[in-house]
Amino acid sequence: MAIINSQTNFRVLQWAKLKEKAIRDKQKLFIVEGYHLVSEANKTAHLKEIITTEKSKSFDVPTYQVTQDVMEKLSSLATPTKLIGICRRKEATLYGDSILLVDQIHHPGNLGTIIRSAVAFDVDTIVVNNSVDVYNQKVIQASQGMIFHINVVKKPIAPLILELKAQDYQIIGTDVKECTSLRTIQSRKKRAVLLGNEGEGLGDELLNMCDVRVNIEMNERCESLNVGVAAGIVLYCLNS
Amino acid sequence: MAIINSQTNFRVLQWAKLKEKAIRDKQKLFIVEGYHLVSEANKTAHLKEIITTEKSKSFDVPTYQVTQDVMEKLSSLATPTKLIGICRRKEATLYGDSILLVDQIHHPGNLGTIIRSAVAFDVDTIVVNNSVDVYNQKVIQASQGMIFHINVVKKPIAPLILELKAQDYQIIGTDVKECTSLRTIQSRKKRAVLLGNEGEGLGDELLNMCDVRVNIEMNERCESLNVGVAAGIVLYCLNS
Repeated sequence: MAIINSQTNFRVLQWAKLKEKAIRDKQKLFIVEGYHLVSEANKTAHLKEIITTEKSKSFDVPTYQVTQDVMEKLSSLATPTKLIGICRRKEATLYGDSILLVDQIHHPGNLGTIIRSAVAFDVDTIVVNNSVDVYNQKVIQASQGMIFHINVVKKPIAPLILELKAQDYQIIGTDVKECTSLRTIQSRKKRAVLLGNEGEGLGDELLNMCDVRVNIEMNERCESLNVGVAAGIVLYCLNS
Repeated sequence: MAIINSQTNFRVLQWAKLKEKAIRDKQKLFIVEGYHLVSEANKTAHLKEIITTEKSKSFDVPTYQVTQDVMEKLSSLATPTKLIGICRRKEATLYGDSILLVDQIHHPGNLGTIIRSAVAFDVDTIVVNNSVDVYNQKVIQASQGMIFHINVVKKPIAPLILELKAQDYQIIGTDVKECTSLRTIQSRKKRAVLLGNEGEGLGDELLNMCDVRVNIEMNERCESLNVGVAAGIVLYCLNS
């Protein structure tokens, strides 16, 4: 295998472009770094090809060996890894019974953490809108590779809620006031949980579309929880 | 009030030193930035003095007006705020009924989020050891100022557990295997919950000191949750 040693090699230039959201969206591809994430991508057939600074071929996909210089151009990490995977997006049209709808989550760590919890608590599909890009590397890292184990869909949420209601999904909003306590809520098997912005929560338009609004009772000295924590608690409790 | 305009003014040099953990520990002081955090510090009498680029005196503590240059030297934020508070540490010796013991949490965002959830779910005292400094600015920011509403203690955990056991506290460890399910655990009113490292969890020494080990049941595709999320779920469920 020839080693790619030029930062201006045409493949290198193509891969590097995947750092841009617009290119990722157009090509339906994204980058992951490090053995753990590449290995998770491989388990679920998201892995298209790998780029490595080492000789060994660890995965059964097209493999490109590159120099450290080239790896530094492709990596987004302070300390570049030895292994990068180019992954395909997959969007299934069947959403399953348990759906998470995410609107205006802007912090990559929060969105990644939410994806990780969603897989832990049996969510089938996560729909993301107006938020940090799901295929941003920081999101993927914070998800600990769980992004490969859940159906991820990018589309506007309000029209989708109308469709879900027609299909008899229960729409559950998270709010801090005028709510049903999470400890007493009766949830249905087919449900969609709505999560809103870190600072502002859900906007009125989406809140008004909910069948039920749920809140997490807490000490009055604390105004709200971190959105990733709130999501984890709600998903865990509804999953019982 | 004279405006302090020199980055080498003796007060400025003293304040700037509080960016170092060793100095914070020695002087039992720490810095917070921005109106929200200063205001939280003021509510609970942690606020010692404030430093501001503006003329108005908003809090009833000694106030020092400084130039933008000086503020930039003191601030740790990319966009310096107009208001900094110098705060006193307080460590109460009475720990209350609900205690959280934190060992080897290294990510400031995680520790801050855990402090926020601890206040939300009525924890009285958080004991931190071998972790990122609680008075690190990123921790305080992620706590959303909740650090002022909980007793924070820095001390080794293993000897403390022995003392707590002698006082009849139930010691609850969080683990991913050989555990009691969080859904069935019987917790006592006097309890201490133990949280361990992001990647490794609790070490054997501490795990072996627990009266009960609890785990959060989850889909087998997901190995573990973010530690801040796990802490939130455990504290919420035990607080019912």
